[in-house]
Amino acid sequence: MKPKIKINERIDQLYSSDVKIIQSSQVFSFSLDAVLLAHFTNLNAKHDRNIVDLCAGNGAVGLFLSPKTEARVTLVEIQSLLADMASRSIQLNNLENRFHVVNDSIANIFKYLSSDSIDVVTCNPPYFVNREQSIKNANKYLTIARHEVLTSLSEVLDVSSRLLKMNGKLFMVHRPERLDDILFELKAHRLAPKRIQFVYPHVNDNANMVLIEAIKDGGPNGVKIIPPIITYSGSDYSKEVETILYGNTD
Amino acid sequence: MKPKIKINERIDQLYSSDVKIIQSSQVFSFSLDAVLLAHFTNLNAKHDRNIVDLCAGNGAVGLFLSPKTEARVTLVEIQSLLADMASRSIQLNNLENRFHVVNDSIANIFKYLSSDSIDVVTCNPPYFVNREQSIKNANKYLTIARHEVLTSLSEVLDVSSRLLKMNGKLFMVHRPERLDDILFELKAHRLAPKRIQFVYPHVNDNANMVLIEAIKDGGPNGVKIIPPIITYSGSDYSKEVETILYGNTD
Repeated sequence: MKPKIKINERIDQLYSSDVKIIQSSQVFSFSLDAVLLAHFTNLNAKHDRNIVDLCAGNGAVGLFLSPKTEARVTLVEIQSLLADMASRSIQLNNLENRFHVVNDSIANIFKYLSSDSIDVVTCNPPYFVNREQSIKNANKYLTIARHEVLTSLSEVLDVSSRLLKMNGKLFMVHRPERLDDILFELKAHRLAPKRIQFVYPHVNDNANMVLIEAIKDGGPNGVKIIPPIITYSGSDYSKEVETILYGNTD
Repeated sequence: MKPKIKINERIDQLYSSDVKIIQSSQVFSFSLDAVLLAHFTNLNAKHDRNIVDLCAGNGAVGLFLSPKTEARVTLVEIQSLLADMASRSIQLNNLENRFHVVNDSIANIFKYLSSDSIDVVTCNPPYFVNREQSIKNANKYLTIARHEVLTSLSEVLDVSSRLLKMNGKLFMVHRPERLDDILFELKAHRLAPKRIQFVYPHVNDNANMVLIEAIKDGGPNGVKIIPPIITYSGSDYSKEVETILYGNTD
């Protein structure tokens, strides 16, 4: 079915995977964070049958995973305008048979899904602590997507942990500034970090992104810090990021 | 005073700083970890008047700091053979007026120093959890230096926190595998990580070292992941590490 594209919307494509996403610069567009999270997410095609993407936005992370899996994927997004964009992108990619959108808060997910039932949770959550003095985006959609207005790191990890089966995996992208909170809250929610990757804009910059894989009820002290991603080489994308975005163009 | 050099000992020099260290391959030699920890340690020449190096071994970390500071430095080492090497290296570098060795357990340090009195604590602690089945070094000195036989991460951070003044700083080197434990225990001991650097042997390897700066009673969510150190370029030290070891040889 060909979905309707509304005014101010456009269709963007992730060229490395042919996935198409309905975007709107005025409401929400996916960013490199979503692309790198989907790339970082290791799926076992046989074993991982149920995937949930929390704080799904316009569905980019889940949709980018679609070429790697035949699993049933549930996208959870509280903002109806974004959930509607995700639904139409699912149609656009002919994934209605196994992709579903839940337009509700993540805390309400247990109305739709059972606890201890999910193999993989992915999440690109709001990054910034909600402080009175935070400089928030005047755009309400972006404020909710980026600031912990309607959810929090602690709630995201609580819901993730409850959704996951024992030894199920969480894949999350976040800001390195919050690494202390992240590792503390993971442990507090029975999630053991296993693989962490830092993303540095240039080789001499501080990291601006962290990708984390954690296992429910995994043991402590088994963290692998895998090789860094350097986003840019000069003003161009680095070879590695170019390949992730556009596929192997050699 | 010219110290006695014993059988099987040798004097090694950190060329970038002219510091000389009495070493013994049979007992203990400093490693790149100690050099990088001293390099990572930012000192404020005016403000930082009292420094303690815990788990000091043969004194390498503290001695490598000596060119950067006029502070009073206390090296705490439980193994008397290593504490004795540290004492003689202090003489060798003519630092007896401001460097002191305490040959005791770190838990006993409050017999010698007051709590809340120290500006900077440095520590290159034993890295490995003490499990019955751990493959330990047959050499007792190295076993104690590398495995948590006589102390633990939790004790190291407890003692560090109690020694430090409010806003005093801890600089520690450790293994990335334990990052989850490290960040959890830092928070449990009122230490907020502020600056973290990962060391990767080669650009495509997992990290094998992590350097951490934490502040006593600092606020959360202010972690900077500073640019990575890549140790080797092919089979040679990288330019950056070569400069740290040998100084600028251009």
